[in-house]
Amino acid sequence: MLAQVERFAREVCGLRPDEPVVVAVSGGPDSLCLLDVLHRLGYPLVVAHFHHGLRPEAEQEMAVVEAEARRRGLPFFFKRGDVRAVSGRSLEDAARHLRYTFLFRVARSTQAQAIATGHTLNDQAETLLLHLIHGSGSTGIRGMQPRTLTPWSEHIPLVRPLLQVTRHETVAYCREHGLPTQEDPTNRDPAYTPRNFLRWEVLPRLTYINPRAAEALARAADILAAEDAYLESQLDRWWAQYARGAGEAIRLDRAALLALPLALQRRALRRAGQGRADFAAVERALALARRPGGPPHPWFGGLALWVEREALWIAPQEAPPAADAPQVRRETALAPGETIPLEGEWVLQASEALPADAAQEAWKVRRLTVWEIWLDAERVTWPLRVTTPRPGLRMAPLGMGGHTRKVSDLLGEAGVPWRLRARWPVVISEEDVVWLPGVRLSHTVRVTAATRQVVRLSIQREKGTLNAGRHHLA
Amino acid sequence: MLAQVERFAREVCGLRPDEPVVVAVSGGPDSLCLLDVLHRLGYPLVVAHFHHGLRPEAEQEMAVVEAEARRRGLPFFFKRGDVRAVSGRSLEDAARHLRYTFLFRVARSTQAQAIATGHTLNDQAETLLLHLIHGSGSTGIRGMQPRTLTPWSEHIPLVRPLLQVTRHETVAYCREHGLPTQEDPTNRDPAYTPRNFLRWEVLPRLTYINPRAAEALARAADILAAEDAYLESQLDRWWAQYARGAGEAIRLDRAALLALPLALQRRALRRAGQGRADFAAVERALALARRPGGPPHPWFGGLALWVEREALWIAPQEAPPAADAPQVRRETALAPGETIPLEGEWVLQASEALPADAAQEAWKVRRLTVWEIWLDAERVTWPLRVTTPRPGLRMAPLGMGGHTRKVSDLLGEAGVPWRLRARWPVVISEEDVVWLPGVRLSHTVRVTAATRQVVRLSIQREKGTLNAGRHHLA
Repeated sequence: MLAQVERFAREVCGLRPDEPVVVAVSGGPDSLCLLDVLHRLGYPLVVAHFHHGLRPEAEQEMAVVEAEARRRGLPFFFKRGDVRAVSGRSLEDAARHLRYTFLFRVARSTQAQAIATGHTLNDQAETLLLHLIHGSGSTGIRGMQPRTLTPWSEHIPLVRPLLQVTRHETVAYCREHGLPTQEDPTNRDPAYTPRNFLRWEVLPRLTYINPRAAEALARAADILAAEDAYLESQLDRWWAQYARGAGEAIRLDRAALLALPLALQRRALRRAGQGRADFAAVERALALARRPGGPPHPWFGGLALWVEREALWIAPQEAPPAADAPQVRRETALAPGETIPLEGEWVLQASEALPADAAQEAWKVRRLTVWEIWLDAERVTWPLRVTTPRPGLRMAPLGMGGHTRKVSDLLGEAGVPWRLRARWPVVISEEDVVWLPGVRLSHTVRVTAATRQVVRLSIQREKGTLNAGRHHLA
Repeated sequence: MLAQVERFAREVCGLRPDEPVVVAVSGGPDSLCLLDVLHRLGYPLVVAHFHHGLRPEAEQEMAVVEAEARRRGLPFFFKRGDVRAVSGRSLEDAARHLRYTFLFRVARSTQAQAIATGHTLNDQAETLLLHLIHGSGSTGIRGMQPRTLTPWSEHIPLVRPLLQVTRHETVAYCREHGLPTQEDPTNRDPAYTPRNFLRWEVLPRLTYINPRAAEALARAADILAAEDAYLESQLDRWWAQYARGAGEAIRLDRAALLALPLALQRRALRRAGQGRADFAAVERALALARRPGGPPHPWFGGLALWVEREALWIAPQEAPPAADAPQVRRETALAPGETIPLEGEWVLQASEALPADAAQEAWKVRRLTVWEIWLDAERVTWPLRVTTPRPGLRMAPLGMGGHTRKVSDLLGEAGVPWRLRARWPVVISEEDVVWLPGVRLSHTVRVTAATRQVVRLSIQREKGTLNAGRHHLA
């Protein structure tokens, strides 16, 4: 076993021979075997034991681990943690949280290169099965990694040098070398955790089908881990080009998403859902990407999902991305010569009333855009009202001979995103819409040969006027 | 259920609405549900039932299926097969073989677009688990496909419209619609097959961990199928460029293989092993590709594996690929003016003895290659012997001042593949090597100012002389 673990520790776990390694030792056969093997291989070791305070045997277990550390002349660290005192987590979760917090503190204080745990091939098989049984749209279907970074440290990895050794082999090793293994009795209670249930009730039955079922499952985890790594690297390349994060919001290029093979489409959506989207959520998002429409709708866990032009957006429902478009919060009056603020960086400006011939001049030198119009100042009632489109509101767009259309339809046809329509600015004179900024001017207020006085209305960023042409609003 | 199956049958199974579909009906709830649903959806159906002749209830089951076909006015096909009479297969295998042979005959004779079977989400979950437990280096870890081609037909697919429906739902459907389901009692015997053991002993236990474990497994199969398809398509592109098949032998570009990500390296080797290489075999092959050396060695199942220059070769041990290089089967004498055949398309030719000044002329017009030399006809004893390198044989290569080297070392340094060295031609005069074709001329027989008569030796394909420069021998 020594040679096998030596190669695995070096080549796969990436352990360097002369920097300290913290070994997490519970006192069970796996961790005692790990301690003994790494010690024989000559790694400088630090022994760490976490005392969960859950069972009467725990004191005895700690004493045994300490004796094993002392016998080898190794530093010994321990901590008594009150797992039951951690609220809001399952007992298992709480124990893991306290244990890893302790292990990483030891690793930092001893400047260790890594923390080694005694996870075996059997643990690997159980982990893969658990992922499969729980449905793992989220984390990807794979087992534990031989070397991995955890949320506890950005630098110190967790390594698992026994990942290709069976539990049976560690027990035999301990027996052969006279190591005083302590078995946690709760490990044997199938009701205790899903993992124990799997270990004692399910896996033994799988060996009826294949005596080496655990090995087969661990191999599958290995294959799937490599495929997962490759698929994620492929996704990385796509993501760098076609996904953009804006605060907590994520924007995916919809055409590029639909051009991906299904496997990467699903992974892109899982990533956009921060790894928490289950299979059904991923499929719902893909269905929306294929047949977009409608306002933002809830995705899962407080996220909303919507399509805007060529983008699929994912953002928290409570805090959608800031609109890159003018939005109105409350109705405001607007008289000639005034500038009123809209939300964000936008303002709406009405020029002083000018004689019509001045407008004629202006007309010559600049091309008016949908964000800047001239109107007949005598056909409206001042002050104008700048407000939002109430349901059912209609206007008579320029060029339609006075025929009216619903404002909501005009906004839709202009490609204004759903989430921006409710607070889109509308400029109203009495009850008539005179301007729908970014979309249309009203027929009724147009400048004609009879016009004597004009006012220019424009929407601009405080930094400067919008350029002509179509604007991507998001 | 109708709407769900309709969409799945159309979009995923690819069924067209107005071409016949053969429905395989055993009489169990899954297949009766499938028959009823597809009939209600308006597909033109043909009912097919295979009578395995294994159990007394089989006659009754067939009668029920026939009655269901008649009640709907559908054509009914059946066959009684003697499963026990098929030798050399397990009972399960034999039954499947006879059943599918029958179903595809029915499909061909009715010009059906597809054969539909009643596999459910639970069958899918069981299939994935079976693949995992059996270790599936070979087929890839995935479940059944909704639409797939089988060895029984290149055109007619097998489709599984119920793959997203649970077994529980088919039972409930049959009860609700008063369908007279027949349950095969052997289905309930966990000892009967691994699948039944999984179904009755393992999966119910997994629902203790997650009540929707079967759904989770089926979803995993779906995810893995998509990832498998993508990974295979990536491998296809690589394969087209870097793999070459020569008869039963396969040649992979070694540098290109090593440049692949691990996941695709493994898949390339699995493909090279015709899908039968298990995990350990794949890893052995990769280890060899990384550190090549040595003669061909057995891989698995009668295949051999070796590296030649920039290629990793996989071929049957008994029939390695034909050598694209001269090889000698038995010792032959060679006198001036003679041509002797080597193996395959090759010949070794000795020109008539010529005055040395003729050679001088020849020297001017052609650049001599390692496949063509001139030697001093008076420094050798005629006839020469064309033979193979016996162990320990040495020669004094031209340019080394008479210093001798082992022929085997010279062959190795010249990059002559291992498998070609044992029968590589050596030209000997008495006990001295005068020429090692493709590699070196001997110092002792070189043409000098004192040479009076010369003979030209050359190796060529019968079609023509080899070109100058390095030759890839394989």
